[in-house]
Amino acid sequence: MNGFQVRTDLALEAKESIGDANESLRGVRVEEDYDEEADLRVTKVMIDTKNASKAMNKPMGTYVTVEAPRLLEPDENYHREISEKIAEQLRQIIPESSQEQSVLVVGLGNREVTADALGPQVVDNLFITRHVVKEYGKAAYGTQKIHLISSIEPGVTAKTGMEAAEIIRGVVEQTKPDVIIVIDALASRSTKRLNRTIQITNTGIQPGSGVGNHRNALTEESMGIPVIAIGVPTVVDAATIVGDAMDNLMSEDDGDSRGFFNTHCSTFSELNNMYVTSKDIDAVIKQVSFTLSEGINMALELA
Amino acid sequence: MNGFQVRTDLALEAKESIGDANESLRGVRVEEDYDEEADLRVTKVMIDTKNASKAMNKPMGTYVTVEAPRLLEPDENYHREISEKIAEQLRQIIPESSQEQSVLVVGLGNREVTADALGPQVVDNLFITRHVVKEYGKAAYGTQKIHLISSIEPGVTAKTGMEAAEIIRGVVEQTKPDVIIVIDALASRSTKRLNRTIQITNTGIQPGSGVGNHRNALTEESMGIPVIAIGVPTVVDAATIVGDAMDNLMSEDDGDSRGFFNTHCSTFSELNNMYVTSKDIDAVIKQVSFTLSEGINMALELA
Amino acid sequence: MNGFQVRTDLALEAKESIGDANESLRGVRVEEDYDEEADLRVTKVMIDTKNASKAMNKPMGTYVTVEAPRLLEPDENYHREISEKIAEQLRQIIPESSQEQSVLVVGLGNREVTADALGPQVVDNLFITRHVVKEYGKAAYGTQKIHLISSIEPGVTAKTGMEAAEIIRGVVEQTKPDVIIVIDALASRSTKRLNRTIQITNTGIQPGSGVGNHRNALTEESMGIPVIAIGVPTVVDAATIVGDAMDNLMSEDDGDSRGFFNTHCSTFSELNNMYVTSKDIDAVIKQVSFTLSEGINMALELA
Amino acid sequence: MNGFQVRTDLALEAKESIGDANESLRGVRVEEDYDEEADLRVTKVMIDTKNASKAMNKPMGTYVTVEAPRLLEPDENYHREISEKIAEQLRQIIPESSQEQSVLVVGLGNREVTADALGPQVVDNLFITRHVVKEYGKAAYGTQKIHLISSIEPGVTAKTGMEAAEIIRGVVEQTKPDVIIVIDALASRSTKRLNRTIQITNTGIQPGSGVGNHRNALTEESMGIPVIAIGVPTVVDAATIVGDAMDNLMSEDDGDSRGFFNTHCSTFSELNNMYVTSKDIDAVIKQVSFTLSEGINMALELA
Repeated sequence: MNGFQVRTDLALEAKESIGDANESLRGVRVEEDYDEEADLRVTKVMIDTKNASKAMNKPMGTYVTVEAPRLLEPDENYHREISEKIAEQLRQIIPESSQEQSVLVVGLGNREVTADALGPQVVDNLFITRHVVKEYGKAAYGTQKIHLISSIEPGVTAKTGMEAAEIIRGVVEQTKPDVIIVIDALASRSTKRLNRTIQITNTGIQPGSGVGNHRNALTEESMGIPVIAIGVPTVVDAATIVGDAMDNLMSEDDGDSRGFFNTHCSTFSELNNMYVTSKDIDAVIKQVSFTLSEGINMALELA
Repeated sequence: MNGFQVRTDLALEAKESIGDANESLRGVRVEEDYDEEADLRVTKVMIDTKNASKAMNKPMGTYVTVEAPRLLEPDENYHREISEKIAEQLRQIIPESSQEQSVLVVGLGNREVTADALGPQVVDNLFITRHVVKEYGKAAYGTQKIHLISSIEPGVTAKTGMEAAEIIRGVVEQTKPDVIIVIDALASRSTKRLNRTIQITNTGIQPGSGVGNHRNALTEESMGIPVIAIGVPTVVDAATIVGDAMDNLMSEDDGDSRGFFNTHCSTFSELNNMYVTSKDIDAVIKQVSFTLSEGINMALELA
Repeated sequence: MNGFQVRTDLALEAKESIGDANESLRGVRVEEDYDEEADLRVTKVMIDTKNASKAMNKPMGTYVTVEAPRLLEPDENYHREISEKIAEQLRQIIPESSQEQSVLVVGLGNREVTADALGPQVVDNLFITRHVVKEYGKAAYGTQKIHLISSIEPGVTAKTGMEAAEIIRGVVEQTKPDVIIVIDALASRSTKRLNRTIQITNTGIQPGSGVGNHRNALTEESMGIPVIAIGVPTVVDAATIVGDAMDNLMSEDDGDSRGFFNTHCSTFSELNNMYVTSKDIDAVIKQVSFTLSEGINMALELA
Repeated sequence: MNGFQVRTDLALEAKESIGDANESLRGVRVEEDYDEEADLRVTKVMIDTKNASKAMNKPMGTYVTVEAPRLLEPDENYHREISEKIAEQLRQIIPESSQEQSVLVVGLGNREVTADALGPQVVDNLFITRHVVKEYGKAAYGTQKIHLISSIEPGVTAKTGMEAAEIIRGVVEQTKPDVIIVIDALASRSTKRLNRTIQITNTGIQPGSGVGNHRNALTEESMGIPVIAIGVPTVVDAATIVGDAMDNLMSEDDGDSRGFFNTHCSTFSELNNMYVTSKDIDAVIKQVSFTLSEGINMALELA
């Protein structure tokens, strides 16, 4: 493996690209759980040390990956199972509290670009309660305990002239939520995890990750409250996919043609600001966003 | 005329409903200008005293109305004239400054409800500069002077759980604009001013006005900086239109059947949360939002 | 009651406006069924004679109305019940066949105008099979019997330059379906049936009915195959609502001020091409279209 | 060069991939014209023989390419020049007639997938006249000669269950246009022509070309009337881009590692149904569709 940067938003792929998935790396703990009946694999990668963080090119924290091979199949019952699994993992990662919590859900991304519309579309289907509780009290829902859910779709910098982080920081200061949940479309390293993998992490979102990169840091450090990020890889960086194909070839070739290639070929620079996505990405986003919304609704209604 | 509240967002209509348009009311000044060639009528209503404000049910300040009977006709040259007129009026009402200004444009309303989508659609076509100047300096535009334009579409309370005013206040605190321009679809009292009238005011937007009412006050008082509001009436309140029909009838009847009617008829309560709009409202919003965007772009690029 | 035309797309309202709902009218049979547990009322109006058709201003045929007072409540289980009721009624009204049928579902209306977007949005959520069966055979679904479902959204005349009927006739000739199901947003006479009533009829759709009127006849006579129409009233004609308010008033007044009113008041002509709809029409259309799609999917998958 | 199929919808690229652009190929004529002031290059490729057609993997006919390097720049005047160039080329390629013509414009593609939404978005901005002339005569436009313009967006097979060709054939039979203009997003071989090249051809559209491939042949042969196709490449096939990178490398390597690569690497199969597009594809489609609509409007209003 050469020294190229790991261009993936998935901790699971970062782990794999460093070494065999089962091989241990100091400072990184991996737990796996496979639900055979539901065909759902949950992998928890915990990055515990600064060194491990550096090696993985990912901040310290917990990364839960739910792999659902049939995420795109139109089977309602299966989707309920995935939503329940997401809810279960979310409840574990959201800081506990004996009381109601005020939760701000942020739909990052660009509604106008299909592969980047995951965040906005998830937010469309959430069960929003904050304004009702503020105006009518909890009695409006006939329950003793109800979370205050609000949401925002900050839009993209090219259209707003502002970073998503600026907008969200302003909203946080005004509305004082206890925790932020950010939804975003991610980039994976290879096509095999596209549209079937859900990553949930307590490390928030870093500048430069995601599909459109329309934000700087959305983290506990920058926001002052815990930031949970939920993402699904919907694209592969175009330069990465070509580079990886090269690598595969070169490793068999045993030569050093990669450097040679980079010198002579203009393909890489041409591929700046390009990404690879699937032709049925509209159906993907529609289906996946619905399953994610349900998972978040379940986690927050029952917590 | 009975004591019913004046249900209109247009100062011009409020003036008319109090008395003859040409009749003077203490504390209210009216200036009119008719551009015959362009068939554009500009009326400036200035409410100068608290008493006049109370009588008009509108805050003290300046209200400019541009009436463009052919606003919906597909004539590009005519639209350029309207945009120029809007730009001219905007430049007069925006507080002067010898320097660049930072302007936040807010697109109020609900993109999913056609008659209420004016604000979001205007914001779609603005020339946004703030992020570019922040990153590359004015040099990026090759000019000595360039305003920093940013924009936000706060969405509707039912979907965000927050008031538009909360979100905007947060954004203002984070990004420190010098002035806010708010775009919103308005309600007029009668159908005859629908989709052909543009109101520009320095009084911002009050709670309870507009189509969807998805905000509380967006005013200089609540935001700490000047708030210019631009609106176009796209709906008539359904109860108002029925009530006015009644009034017309009764005034000829010379009887007191209005109260009688209100007591016996369930139509009014049925009409709560209903509005009247035109069948081609999609074409209206598309055309008008484009003309408004151009007007704002002209006003801000050249100022 | 005066001789004004009955401006409603609902046979149920036409019946009421002619006389008491329980009163018999020669040539019209009415059957009612109330499911108390589900709070669903099914009324079947059968117009059997030409005279009755003329009196009702509706073609001869069967009109089933499902009234679901809680159609807008976010209760998934209740919606499943409504969808099942729709499916049940649809299966009864679709001409029987021992074999697979080829069904063309038409989503009438204008996606860009919220109150008129019901048809297009229902079509978005259908389970479409025709192309799969054509290419891979029934084996693709692992069943012995599968209907061939296709769908089309013909758009509005102002954008296509064609009547919906022209487009659909062309598609019918090319693809030879056995039956057409047309979905459309309707106009009701009063606000009380808006957004909570589903009408299913075997008479198709007549010119001049519906919200946007973007079509001429879609009937068995014009298409050569049975045409089932499913509609939900989402608007009231603005002139109708004012007229009805007048009528209510006049009937108490015992006078003849209606004619007087019409002569003196410009409200009616102002209201041409205007309609009344509810402020949350976006949420209405989203919820109702989903429930209808499910009902159609259920009816066609299991038949 | 190996025997791989030329995966491009652009005749210009097909020509280049066969040999040097300036080199002559029997049966293929190339004419170039460069407008220096406007920075617009027009290349006309005429494929005159069956052999040439086979070599180029493109049907016999005329292919005009307008290359506009600044197609994405927000300069209104420049866009007017491009629109005029498109109009000029369209007028030359549309079969001449001394009379009004009836023109059906077809917007192919998937509105829900940004890179594939070119056709639907172009159709949104056309000047449609057929229904007006049919109802009110030419007098409605106050001219002696006016083309009858209609348009349709047939949608994608996965949603309609029908081929676009079936729908269009039906519409053609019903409405008898004289000529069809089809708009579609194309695939190019490399990223360098993306979003800046407009191809106009009288050969229509072949099965398997375009972004989403949602149609079979739309040609004069299948439709019975001339079919002009206008396309802009917005994507590159993902497998093609990797394959081309390989080819570049191999040609320098002088080895036969391509076959070796194909045998050992799973990247290619992974890339099935994937495409490469640019991150700002939403802005691209919005800008380009507007320029194309204007070009078509100009060509048809003045013809």
